[in-house]
Amino acid sequence: MNVLIVSAHPDPASLTVALRDVAADQLRAAGHAVQVSDLYAMNWKAAVDRADFLHLTADEQMRPPVASMQAAAAGTLTRDVLDEQEKVLWADAVIFSFPLWWFSVPAILKGWIDRVWSSGFGYQNGGERYGAGRLAGKRAMVMVTIGGRESHYSDRGINGPIDDLLFPINHGMLYYPGFDVLPPYVVYRTDRMDEARFQETSREIRERMASLFTIAPIPFRPQAGGDYVDKLVELKEEIAATAPRGFAAHLDHRRT
Amino acid sequence: MNVLIVSAHPDPASLTVALRDVAADQLRAAGHAVQVSDLYAMNWKAAVDRADFLHLTADEQMRPPVASMQAAAAGTLTRDVLDEQEKVLWADAVIFSFPLWWFSVPAILKGWIDRVWSSGFGYQNGGERYGAGRLAGKRAMVMVTIGGRESHYSDRGINGPIDDLLFPINHGMLYYPGFDVLPPYVVYRTDRMDEARFQETSREIRERMASLFTIAPIPFRPQAGGDYVDKLVELKEEIAATAPRGFAAHLDHRRT
Repeated sequence: MNVLIVSAHPDPASLTVALRDVAADQLRAAGHAVQVSDLYAMNWKAAVDRADFLHLTADEQMRPPVASMQAAAAGTLTRDVLDEQEKVLWADAVIFSFPLWWFSVPAILKGWIDRVWSSGFGYQNGGERYGAGRLAGKRAMVMVTIGGRESHYSDRGINGPIDDLLFPINHGMLYYPGFDVLPPYVVYRTDRMDEARFQETSREIRERMASLFTIAPIPFRPQAGGDYVDKLVELKEEIAATAPRGFAAHLDHRRT
Repeated sequence: MNVLIVSAHPDPASLTVALRDVAADQLRAAGHAVQVSDLYAMNWKAAVDRADFLHLTADEQMRPPVASMQAAAAGTLTRDVLDEQEKVLWADAVIFSFPLWWFSVPAILKGWIDRVWSSGFGYQNGGERYGAGRLAGKRAMVMVTIGGRESHYSDRGINGPIDDLLFPINHGMLYYPGFDVLPPYVVYRTDRMDEARFQETSREIRERMASLFTIAPIPFRPQAGGDYVDKLVELKEEIAATAPRGFAAHLDHRRT
């Protein structure tokens, strides 16, 4: 199978990059083809701006969703965006490798999403989404390193539950364009990583890579799966009545 | 009072920028001093990288939290970061004006947080946070424009509740360094904005600006307020027992 790793740590000597390489090596050893988009090494342009939309005249207003649709239709998306889209289309699975900064992805990775998930690729105007869409049938997974302690990210931890903090990424950035999203692999207290713990972490990552194409995805509810009221796209009353509040309402554990 | 607006839309002719200007004009008319950091106009550098840490030698490993602490101590933070920190220290209130892209801030604004909230400014190693910290006593507020419909962001909406989607920003990026965080101002269906609705929206924004220094903040629980177990920083058992699950557990509505 083909795997794309999108990697977003500025230091090639970091733990985040070392663990990314453990994953890549394991996948290659198992016979998969691996490409790595190392966003810092590529000097990835993070900000969506006018330079992304070559068809716009100087005095034309730039509305990003409209400009993105026009550029896709005219075949004038920039080369860097097209290259990444080709890698994603090539991939059977996409892995995001990054440190959690301010409870989200680093800016450079957000800029990869903002630019690569262009109109007609990451979303289509009025089109299918959440379990359907252009990228349906592919798998995606987050590998994230965190400086803080696990308890701070637990169900009662002050930062909020890690699954909720990752929901805008797993559900919003990955399930939305169609991926089956796998449970994340999270490493806490990265400043307390001795050799023994590194070996144990590497072993766990190898196991996760070995199950990349077999492990059950997070059971998010598909938009077209019958659980939502049309158009409002709100959970049906009878489902909401027994579902938890918040993000967790959008999982259906009977699907696992 | 002094107000800093951090603005992150690539198109000066956009609705997001127009509404930002409504806010700025109202604040100035009321006698406040206003500075605007227009991140696109400033060509703000989004990615944290080696160029941020001038003290690092070529072969030295870059660990962002350590390098950030060293640069702050040595007074070698870059000029662009120092300028923004000075504006934040000058401000009594900070407003973020941005379009919601992929359920978070645009990359350029994430890069403002990643870089400006440096060690000793946005956080201190082992120091106070969540309702305490360097920026305590200041107010912050999010003004966000959204293309989708409000129902998609409602309690049962498929995208997840807007307050939960904004929690990593309001609680994680703003309450963490000490701000009192005000309820967000959210505009939905930005592609259906006619003149009448624009006038009504502008009126609401003027009202919100008029109450910027009096409206009650979101009642997040302070870390040192007695609701959390020390060190674990988990909600105390007896509080968790009656609190909702998920992000909402970290609000105490008796505080409003």
